[in-house]
Amino acid sequence: MNETMVQAQAAVGDCLAGVRVLDLTQFEAGPSCTEALAFLGAEVVKIENPKAGEPGRTGFRGPSQSSDSYYFMLFNANKKSVTVDLKSPRGLQLVKDMAAHADVFAENFAPGAIERLGLGYDVIKAINPSIIYAQVKGFGKGSPYENNLAFDMIAQATGGVMSITGERGGPPAKPGCTLGDTGTGMLMAISILGALYRRKGTGQGERLELAMQDAMLQYIRVALATNSVFNKPVERNGAKVISGGTVPSGIYKCKPGGPNDYVYAYTSRANPAHWHNLLKVIGHPELIGDERYDTPAARAQREEEIDAMIAAWACQHDKREAMRILGSAGVPAGAVYDTMELQTEPSFEQRGVMQTIDHPASGKFKMPSWPVRHGGRPPKVRPSPTLGQHNDDVLTHWLGLDQKERDDLRKSGVI
Amino acid sequence: MNETMVQAQAAVGDCLAGVRVLDLTQFEAGPSCTEALAFLGAEVVKIENPKAGEPGRTGFRGPSQSSDSYYFMLFNANKKSVTVDLKSPRGLQLVKDMAAHADVFAENFAPGAIERLGLGYDVIKAINPSIIYAQVKGFGKGSPYENNLAFDMIAQATGGVMSITGERGGPPAKPGCTLGDTGTGMLMAISILGALYRRKGTGQGERLELAMQDAMLQYIRVALATNSVFNKPVERNGAKVISGGTVPSGIYKCKPGGPNDYVYAYTSRANPAHWHNLLKVIGHPELIGDERYDTPAARAQREEEIDAMIAAWACQHDKREAMRILGSAGVPAGAVYDTMELQTEPSFEQRGVMQTIDHPASGKFKMPSWPVRHGGRPPKVRPSPTLGQHNDDVLTHWLGLDQKERDDLRKSGVI
Repeated sequence: MNETMVQAQAAVGDCLAGVRVLDLTQFEAGPSCTEALAFLGAEVVKIENPKAGEPGRTGFRGPSQSSDSYYFMLFNANKKSVTVDLKSPRGLQLVKDMAAHADVFAENFAPGAIERLGLGYDVIKAINPSIIYAQVKGFGKGSPYENNLAFDMIAQATGGVMSITGERGGPPAKPGCTLGDTGTGMLMAISILGALYRRKGTGQGERLELAMQDAMLQYIRVALATNSVFNKPVERNGAKVISGGTVPSGIYKCKPGGPNDYVYAYTSRANPAHWHNLLKVIGHPELIGDERYDTPAARAQREEEIDAMIAAWACQHDKREAMRILGSAGVPAGAVYDTMELQTEPSFEQRGVMQTIDHPASGKFKMPSWPVRHGGRPPKVRPSPTLGQHNDDVLTHWLGLDQKERDDLRKSGVI
Repeated sequence: MNETMVQAQAAVGDCLAGVRVLDLTQFEAGPSCTEALAFLGAEVVKIENPKAGEPGRTGFRGPSQSSDSYYFMLFNANKKSVTVDLKSPRGLQLVKDMAAHADVFAENFAPGAIERLGLGYDVIKAINPSIIYAQVKGFGKGSPYENNLAFDMIAQATGGVMSITGERGGPPAKPGCTLGDTGTGMLMAISILGALYRRKGTGQGERLELAMQDAMLQYIRVALATNSVFNKPVERNGAKVISGGTVPSGIYKCKPGGPNDYVYAYTSRANPAHWHNLLKVIGHPELIGDERYDTPAARAQREEEIDAMIAAWACQHDKREAMRILGSAGVPAGAVYDTMELQTEPSFEQRGVMQTIDHPASGKFKMPSWPVRHGGRPPKVRPSPTLGQHNDDVLTHWLGLDQKERDDLRKSGVI
């Protein structure tokens, strides 16, 4: 291939062409991180147990009893799979040989597990000094909970997210988004990419470590700012803005009254036009400029009254119609979409934000791509690999093993 | 500087040394993105209105009436500030001149605003064909809401996050984390870094676009998997896991009973040991192996009973003690931390995850750093810039303007 051909191919999803990631991650916090690299074109090779694969393959439900789970398909798109028995000496050596040819090594086992396997940082660094070695754990080194297990919800509890989510006066709620997992994975992906950028110039390796609890602070910084203003813990505030004092901000019931038939309406404190635009829409143009409502401070004194005025208008409309009317009038507004509405929304498919894959074993499945458009389009989604699908490919291209050597590994149960 | 010195200096936070980011972002979705690049060592130059700066500086509260807001300090650390009047022809030309010397251009104005300013993609690309031009909007091109305004809560409503957050049977709640803003910013940072990596080899520029609504899909993929299993919208589930059927998973009241005195306890369906470990801790070792409780399916039939057993134990303990006992016994568990407890937790400061800055105007402020440890430590936090603090620095080093030229720009109100 000449230079021109390389550049012509270097389109969507090829940013990281040539980058090799040795991926020992499982479940979501790790896999979401390496999947982001795969979406951008890195060759990400999952190392999986030959018997069952990583636990996310089978620990959740898929289209059939025997198929890979939807969960696995969502967090392992665009990757390759190689099976290796890490408990066998030959299997362990195989992974070390692969580490010598990798740019990035990633893992999120329980604390201490990767060292017990014999694949700790010092071992891998000795094999490949320029490797970027990335680890996700629940809690940071030096934390009182350093050796504790963690899952998404534990990170959301200990990282403050739950304390600021839920109804006023009610118990903490867990955001339905998996911020503890994917939210952590995204931050690690950023650090890996930063380290890769430097390494491309200098060849310098790097050890990267991220605790799920610590990662949560990145996403609650508005609450930390509010905590600093009032010098007390931030309270839960239902659908409204936690910092308080922004009126209106919240959801209003729409027709026909189902569990998610609501429209969010908001007027920024920084832009008085939002409030005036809203008054026109809801049929109260006479209140424009009325000092009882015209400043954020004044509106904060009349929250119930203002909410009732908007509610009286919203309940006459379907949520999408309400969003369209408010949005066109220059009021920040959004219908509350449920998961089925998102899964079936035609605009996502037309724009390539959702794509339908055809998985060799699990069949057709519509799933989100990487949402950033590169040159106008999100990257193309390729189905998650079947267990060991790329054994021959990777052992040949990374390690130069011939057919006989590969067959021998297969027969002896190492791969 | 020789090669060895460069490598010695290339430590924490220097991954992106030499990368220049021209930053026209405001509020949080854009600034959180460029701040991540700044934490990793990029030279990020904010272009701000000479009169008041970007709206995030003054639209929120800080330590005093006249100081920059905590909000601004949190989302603009490690950046530089240059003031430019974009409405003046000379100011506009100044930004174009800077674009010729930048690697990345970032903006998150309302739809159409950057084009009206005369700094749209085609203009900047003509000046600098290898630039990475990154744009964050509320809704994607081709979406029915393409021209609508959006803020964090609008993204969380329209991106499905709110529909899966809140109490069972109650209204949607907004997660207190600003996933719509920072969650979007982190994904754009990943794509910028991917494009920078390729550009380092090929010189290829790229246009990157991300809609806040689309970005939310990345964080609710477990809900989308659940939606696909049951073929209906996912329902809210309080503090419990939204996919349901995992028992126990939830929060349990602890002493002394304050609004955030809860401990989260969870037993993974994939690991039976968690349940057995939990039974020992709560004083029911006799139930280990009892078939009425021993499988996830069996426990799912006895949710209330099991919750009551755990609650009876948890209420005897302080939440941190409960977390310590459960965690040490191999049960995934986490105390619900409130924002004040996080702000004052000594471990964060000891580990460099929180650092105290000394802002020239606003004084001392303890704030989170970038949470990923590079070589053992998070990057050092430098205070957000004062308005126009780096006018001389940047106009000299990027554009080679001499003292007289800079003074002239100042006198004429362009900077």
